[in-house]
Amino acid sequence: MKSTPKGMRDFLPEDMIIRNQVMKQIEESYRNYGYRPIETPAMEYLETLSAKAGGEIEGEIFSLEGKELALRFDLTVPLARVAATNSFPKPFKRYCISRVWRKEEPQRGRFREFWQADVDIIGSKEMRSEAELLTLTREMLIGFGFPKPRILLNNRKIMTAILDKLELGENGNDILRILDKTDKIGEVAVRAELKKLVGETPTREILKLIKMEGTNEEKLAAVERICKEGVEELREIIKLCNFEIEVDLALVRGLGYYTGPVFEVQLSKEMGSIAGGGRYDNLLGAYGQNDCATGISIGVERMITLMKERKTNEQENSKTYTVVFVGCVKPEFYDYSFKVAEELRKAGIAAETDLNSRNLRKQMDYANSLCIPYFAVVGEREMKEKKITLKDMKTGTEEQVNVAEAIKKLKGGSC
Amino acid sequence: MKSTPKGMRDFLPEDMIIRNQVMKQIEESYRNYGYRPIETPAMEYLETLSAKAGGEIEGEIFSLEGKELALRFDLTVPLARVAATNSFPKPFKRYCISRVWRKEEPQRGRFREFWQADVDIIGSKEMRSEAELLTLTREMLIGFGFPKPRILLNNRKIMTAILDKLELGENGNDILRILDKTDKIGEVAVRAELKKLVGETPTREILKLIKMEGTNEEKLAAVERICKEGVEELREIIKLCNFEIEVDLALVRGLGYYTGPVFEVQLSKEMGSIAGGGRYDNLLGAYGQNDCATGISIGVERMITLMKERKTNEQENSKTYTVVFVGCVKPEFYDYSFKVAEELRKAGIAAETDLNSRNLRKQMDYANSLCIPYFAVVGEREMKEKKITLKDMKTGTEEQVNVAEAIKKLKGGSC
Repeated sequence: MKSTPKGMRDFLPEDMIIRNQVMKQIEESYRNYGYRPIETPAMEYLETLSAKAGGEIEGEIFSLEGKELALRFDLTVPLARVAATNSFPKPFKRYCISRVWRKEEPQRGRFREFWQADVDIIGSKEMRSEAELLTLTREMLIGFGFPKPRILLNNRKIMTAILDKLELGENGNDILRILDKTDKIGEVAVRAELKKLVGETPTREILKLIKMEGTNEEKLAAVERICKEGVEELREIIKLCNFEIEVDLALVRGLGYYTGPVFEVQLSKEMGSIAGGGRYDNLLGAYGQNDCATGISIGVERMITLMKERKTNEQENSKTYTVVFVGCVKPEFYDYSFKVAEELRKAGIAAETDLNSRNLRKQMDYANSLCIPYFAVVGEREMKEKKITLKDMKTGTEEQVNVAEAIKKLKGGSC
Repeated sequence: MKSTPKGMRDFLPEDMIIRNQVMKQIEESYRNYGYRPIETPAMEYLETLSAKAGGEIEGEIFSLEGKELALRFDLTVPLARVAATNSFPKPFKRYCISRVWRKEEPQRGRFREFWQADVDIIGSKEMRSEAELLTLTREMLIGFGFPKPRILLNNRKIMTAILDKLELGENGNDILRILDKTDKIGEVAVRAELKKLVGETPTREILKLIKMEGTNEEKLAAVERICKEGVEELREIIKLCNFEIEVDLALVRGLGYYTGPVFEVQLSKEMGSIAGGGRYDNLLGAYGQNDCATGISIGVERMITLMKERKTNEQENSKTYTVVFVGCVKPEFYDYSFKVAEELRKAGIAAETDLNSRNLRKQMDYANSLCIPYFAVVGEREMKEKKITLKDMKTGTEEQVNVAEAIKKLKGGSC
């Protein structure tokens, strides 16, 4: 029997418990800033997806038999379709945490089915929106235990103006695509590819401008005459944000649809970016009704990997949500153990009982194999006295308590 | 521009807020009984799905271009694959709330993409498992505000034994399929179809046995000689469950893979079932490594519809999670309003600010259109005094408070 399809994964309970926790924390951040959930079908008409897929992604679309329908490759295209065909109070602030599919060649950390977590603002042209997205992302990462996220900011308008000024506008998309590969192929290779495309002098001039060192204000001043509007937008974002932001004139973000500020967030200089996004004021037009828009996407798969690594260092991963296993000494006490478990559950304490008529030793082995933190024993004496013997599996201490006392203890204690 | 594919839905924020709440409540019930989450890919190899799809569903499978892969049509087949190819401590109790796809003809309440919510127990042959599944389901439904779920119970073994005794075993699957249609086509049509298949006398004998009236014990006594084992299993489940269960010897459950007790839960006599399941001790064998198994599925789409109807009756549906909109009188106070919002968010109170430099009236219109329960005003005086004017939009009362006081009030109040 075959297992999962290429590039796709089963998530077993240990994985799911971390995944659920990370996604919940992301979702809470989104809600905290007033973003509203939407969900769209896994499938769209292929023509809906193709309208904005762009060259590289087009070849990665999973299409259904008959090729009329296909699986979505991101959450932005479905959002654009929904926003252009519904009327929402504006700004429409939406979040979506859900799965997408791309027929890429699987590599370490890249899968054919993966989750994305996006927030977008439709219908606000102001830099307040960008400031909110960056604030939200930074606070979320701090909440995940990364106290100093590095925030990189650029403006697609500045890049476009530079290329126009150098009369390279017609090669614009190719140049952006090459520049976007810096992290992957390195600066030397980027320089070589650019040279091949536009020649030596323009390459030198582009790189001189966008790679310049200095403070934010020095960089912005250097390009102010080329693109006043783009520079002022970045100044406003920086002013609105109450934390450090780094202007990076070389920041490109591959996608063709960006039209204004673009941003990436890194957890350290060494690691790639954990979040990225930008303004795309013309995308919705392709779906019927144009409106301005900006958004940011968190690399949820990467965040899950990071949290998993950290957990492995600190402690064993959780394998279950169960807090207490109510074991019974002999089958005739099973009714009582089930009743005790029901009382615990009604108090919101996750409890299990023995479903296999095993001896107490085997019941304990099962509970230990799932690292269930408490084990309650129910025998003749306990039943007579309406009590349970509650054992803390970490410390080994045990005590005889009634169910109300057990509830109090388990609600107070950690699990 | 086309909208969603046939039989598929966009879920807008009002829908999502109810959907999320219903699914969260279901998930909490599952965790409370010690079920552990797994998730599997949307896609499986077509041969994996076909191995247990059975006639009707086979034609409803969405296959991908190339027909090697296809979208899952339920959560049980992927569970069987996972359970047969991994080793878990037994019993393996898992839950999954996720989407599936079927190329059915869409009708009222039936979609081509829909969510299922399943709990299953792999590796326990005891009736304790069935009792736990029924207890969990009943408690969950009571938690949803349905105090008297009606629980119907039968045993596939009894049905099989009756058919064997009447020497109708070879037509077994067809007979089950006809009986399963009673709710859809009515008793008269079922009787006619059966007659056509097996003749008048056997039809009368089958229906006499399975449609008999009486107490549970009368029904069980009537078939005890035909199938002692099946009857004893049902007696044990009834004994373990501390609530009313109705033996229904005509209960079939269409799927071919059931081997033991089967059950359905209804919210009233008029409504169809809200949950159903049964024991399928041979399914895992098809995926490599056999083990006994039993499970129950909640009709999550139906539950969402019920909760939505109830909400509409009681109050307007929630449109956002936001608790307070921090409006500002003039653009120069925006920084302060953003700072106030950040403090509220840090205290876990979902807050929004004006992203569009609108006047206060327009900001309030936006907040009202989303039914945000509180509106805070920030102007010159508020900024000077480090306060906000907090208005309760339901009562219309407003008061000047500092942020700490606002947090206290909003955390105490409802939202």
